[in-house]
Amino acid sequence: MLCEKHIFSSGVNNINCEKITSRKNPKIAAACSLADKKSRDSTGLFVAEGIKLIKELILEGVKIHRLFFTEKAKNRFYDTLIKAQEAGCELYEVTDEVYEKLSAEKNPEGIFAQAQKTSVYGSCADTPGSGGFLILDGIQNPSNVGTVIRTASALGISRILLGEGCADIFSHKTLRASMGSLFKVHICITEDLCGEIDYLKKQGAHIYAAMLDKDSTDIRSAEFSRDDCIVLGNEGNGISDKVSAVCDRKVIIPMQLGTESLNAASAAAILMWEKQKGVLE
Amino acid sequence: MLCEKHIFSSGVNNINCEKITSRKNPKIAAACSLADKKSRDSTGLFVAEGIKLIKELILEGVKIHRLFFTEKAKNRFYDTLIKAQEAGCELYEVTDEVYEKLSAEKNPEGIFAQAQKTSVYGSCADTPGSGGFLILDGIQNPSNVGTVIRTASALGISRILLGEGCADIFSHKTLRASMGSLFKVHICITEDLCGEIDYLKKQGAHIYAAMLDKDSTDIRSAEFSRDDCIVLGNEGNGISDKVSAVCDRKVIIPMQLGTESLNAASAAAILMWEKQKGVLE
Repeated sequence: MLCEKHIFSSGVNNINCEKITSRKNPKIAAACSLADKKSRDSTGLFVAEGIKLIKELILEGVKIHRLFFTEKAKNRFYDTLIKAQEAGCELYEVTDEVYEKLSAEKNPEGIFAQAQKTSVYGSCADTPGSGGFLILDGIQNPSNVGTVIRTASALGISRILLGEGCADIFSHKTLRASMGSLFKVHICITEDLCGEIDYLKKQGAHIYAAMLDKDSTDIRSAEFSRDDCIVLGNEGNGISDKVSAVCDRKVIIPMQLGTESLNAASAAAILMWEKQKGVLE
Repeated sequence: MLCEKHIFSSGVNNINCEKITSRKNPKIAAACSLADKKSRDSTGLFVAEGIKLIKELILEGVKIHRLFFTEKAKNRFYDTLIKAQEAGCELYEVTDEVYEKLSAEKNPEGIFAQAQKTSVYGSCADTPGSGGFLILDGIQNPSNVGTVIRTASALGISRILLGEGCADIFSHKTLRASMGSLFKVHICITEDLCGEIDYLKKQGAHIYAAMLDKDSTDIRSAEFSRDDCIVLGNEGNGISDKVSAVCDRKVIIPMQLGTESLNAASAAAILMWEKQKGVLE
């Protein structure tokens, strides 16, 4: 038996949890395996670390199956653990050594969740919410994907469409950069980005490709409507030819002479800001 | 003798370089030690990796003392090596094993420079260039520091003032995120940020602190003059109390209800864009 059942109390509530002391515990192995996209895809689960992110999961109603935490974290994050337990989450106190196996952080806070992936839609037609999509074409860096989703959410863009070649939204780095905003927006993932863009155009949206071409429209003169969409391309290569061919507008951020480009997430922030600044309260 | 002198030729030019085969070679050890800020501070040197960044160093006239490269990189980046050699740089071909010791990259391109730090100014009064400063107060994440410098440079802000607690501008991560823009702008580093802000105010600039306080001015209503400055604070804690006390304006990016904040570099991009969009050509 790898787990030792014990109960401790603090205040009026009780945390009823098992203690895991072995790094070979199957629950630990299962959680660790979720660092791998294949495991996430086959199980429908993902993992998230850190109190801020885990609080967001609880706030947004994401189903957390298991929480693993160190003794120190148990005392520090007692209220969060009680809330999670009440919502039906299994709690496991783990030794520092076991936690180290789970963690991907340099300075971990000692709290780690295994949760059920939230809904991802397969077509724009099925995606709830309203307003134009932010469209990502081959954004490979998970931190960039997370950061642009965080910015979109903050600026009131609630629908994100990801084409092929984008980083997995449920990876550790994407989740950390998105700071929980991933669970505030509606995500659509497609293998047919051109087809989805065609659909959006037929619905009356203009599709603005963020390009560095000189014949692109200066973002300062763009007049966005609510349902218009912005497409961001790969960090090094920009938007793919086949995708740019189906976009009906091209837009550029004017830059100082001698500057090659902006960071993808910074450019995205400026573009989304220009689209949304008129509608934010 | 650790180095084997040899000459090879390709086209009309010759690369005259020694070959380093030992990971214990003192030149390798010296270059490796520059990953550490203390070594950079005591020697006045820094290291930079990757062809894009190294081309920028050459373009901006940064003095490169030594270039280390693998055999593969020697053939691939021949023109750059010739240019560097003509500018007086020492060239060293290294084995893959030696290169691995130098490199901080997952997928290295096999070219690594040791260069002389560029000028950093100690006060705003001494800093060349014109126009308002971007002011960083305790931005700890080196990638954020690099990214905001890159954005500033692209948007025509050519002077950056860093206070205490900011990441070292010559660290690997800062350099990588700045993509060479570090050498296009003028950097001032101070231990007396409040004193420098006072100086800038006396010169007629308004100092806009980026704050999340509800009584801050909506960025959409801010009217920036050319010499006005924007202050960005620490990723978690924002601008320090003592610094915000000397700023004469507070500014906020309006956000969707339920959003706590934006990524520091993304917020910086929007703020700098709002200040600069009227003056960019």
